[in-house]
Amino acid sequence: MQLGETVTAGVVVIGNEILSGRTQDKNLGWLAAELTSVGIRLLEAKVIPDIAPTVIATLKDYSTRFDYVFTTGGIGPTHDDITAACVAEAFGCRLVRDPRAVHLLDTHYPTGQLTEARLKMADIPEGAELIDNPVSAAPGFIVGNVHVMAGVPRIMQAMFDGLKPKLQGGAPVHSVTVTARIGESFMAKGLEAVQMEHPDIDIGSYPFYRSGEVGSSIVLRSTDKAELAIAAEKVRGVMRALGVEPIEGELPAISG
Amino acid sequence: MQLGETVTAGVVVIGNEILSGRTQDKNLGWLAAELTSVGIRLLEAKVIPDIAPTVIATLKDYSTRFDYVFTTGGIGPTHDDITAACVAEAFGCRLVRDPRAVHLLDTHYPTGQLTEARLKMADIPEGAELIDNPVSAAPGFIVGNVHVMAGVPRIMQAMFDGLKPKLQGGAPVHSVTVTARIGESFMAKGLEAVQMEHPDIDIGSYPFYRSGEVGSSIVLRSTDKAELAIAAEKVRGVMRALGVEPIEGELPAISG
Repeated sequence: MQLGETVTAGVVVIGNEILSGRTQDKNLGWLAAELTSVGIRLLEAKVIPDIAPTVIATLKDYSTRFDYVFTTGGIGPTHDDITAACVAEAFGCRLVRDPRAVHLLDTHYPTGQLTEARLKMADIPEGAELIDNPVSAAPGFIVGNVHVMAGVPRIMQAMFDGLKPKLQGGAPVHSVTVTARIGESFMAKGLEAVQMEHPDIDIGSYPFYRSGEVGSSIVLRSTDKAELAIAAEKVRGVMRALGVEPIEGELPAISG
Repeated sequence: MQLGETVTAGVVVIGNEILSGRTQDKNLGWLAAELTSVGIRLLEAKVIPDIAPTVIATLKDYSTRFDYVFTTGGIGPTHDDITAACVAEAFGCRLVRDPRAVHLLDTHYPTGQLTEARLKMADIPEGAELIDNPVSAAPGFIVGNVHVMAGVPRIMQAMFDGLKPKLQGGAPVHSVTVTARIGESFMAKGLEAVQMEHPDIDIGSYPFYRSGEVGSSIVLRSTDKAELAIAAEKVRGVMRALGVEPIEGELPAISG
């Protein structure tokens, strides 16, 4: 894969249970932090139901728009697990019983327990690369730039941990966080001026309220470490000019 | 608004901080459960960055595809709060300093503290209906079918609580959950048969692993309560045929 300076990703969370509110998604936030840590910019994420045409259309769209696509959910043994079939359809390849995956399942399950339903987890798009599942054997897989992982968080995390060393990040994004015990509105004008002077730096302002205390964390992000340091110092200057001492990083356990 | 039997929604989570992994989104799961509780089906959710063309395109797309659209994030006082301007652009209306919103802010803040930055929170698309913010005054708003809310969870929740009685749900979706202390693969064939006999019932199988214990919760959802009861009884039959006693509902604190 030929990747540029900025490497992008899209995440697709597949599952009715997330949209109905039955299950709280824990994968998106975890993946977002992991991708950032390897220099991959998550540009968009989508939560979609287990409806084949929706899954297929989303996979086609994401695979052309982002360098990497990661999906979670829908690769188990039951009738509502349709992700593998949808990936095959989206990429125009056959869904085949993969002998490598059969072997993995056969080794994992005690004799006689590799049922037909479990064998369904070996039905994988032809030509796919397998993703190791050290938790419960049934593999994820890669077709093109689409990385298909389990929905159960600890299985998904184990799969991603195995993938991580193989992912090619772009220029790493550095981040500086400066916090002040003051409402963000007081800094708005100053922050906007810093943003105007440094248009390539992503400056976010995140207010918090905690046990009656009001404050704001200012997060600056850029691939240019030198410019980042200059802009961060200007943000500290905005705080000091308001008579507030900047605190490096976040306050512990900042909410929402 | 003329709504059909099935009332749909899309949720747009706006914010770089979610995609970078800095902030874990807590709004999507909460909104999913709330919408389900009032008979509105959340069909899709998207997390997008604070980039104006992306926000505008997503709002245009969602507002035509779903009965209701709910957004969270980007309505604060700082330079990175661009949602109001994007909604105005998407709907082709002007962004104006709303006298009702100015009054709300003026009443909320002590004399002299309604700064120009805070007044930015009164810049709202012309003709919008305001959404009450009992926490910190700065209102959300409604343009067309797009409901714009804050990103801070407790403010968003307070805004939605106020909106909720005004939302028109469709036929309520009933749900039955039956749990068995058995891997889902053993039930796969039986569940598929039930699904084939009841194609309009959404049957999901959710495995769990907890302190070495394996189990599966089967969730059946439908607007037809009578058919739901018949299908749920068949699922209990699938479990009993495998020698496992069905448990009504979920086990407490099921993970994954």
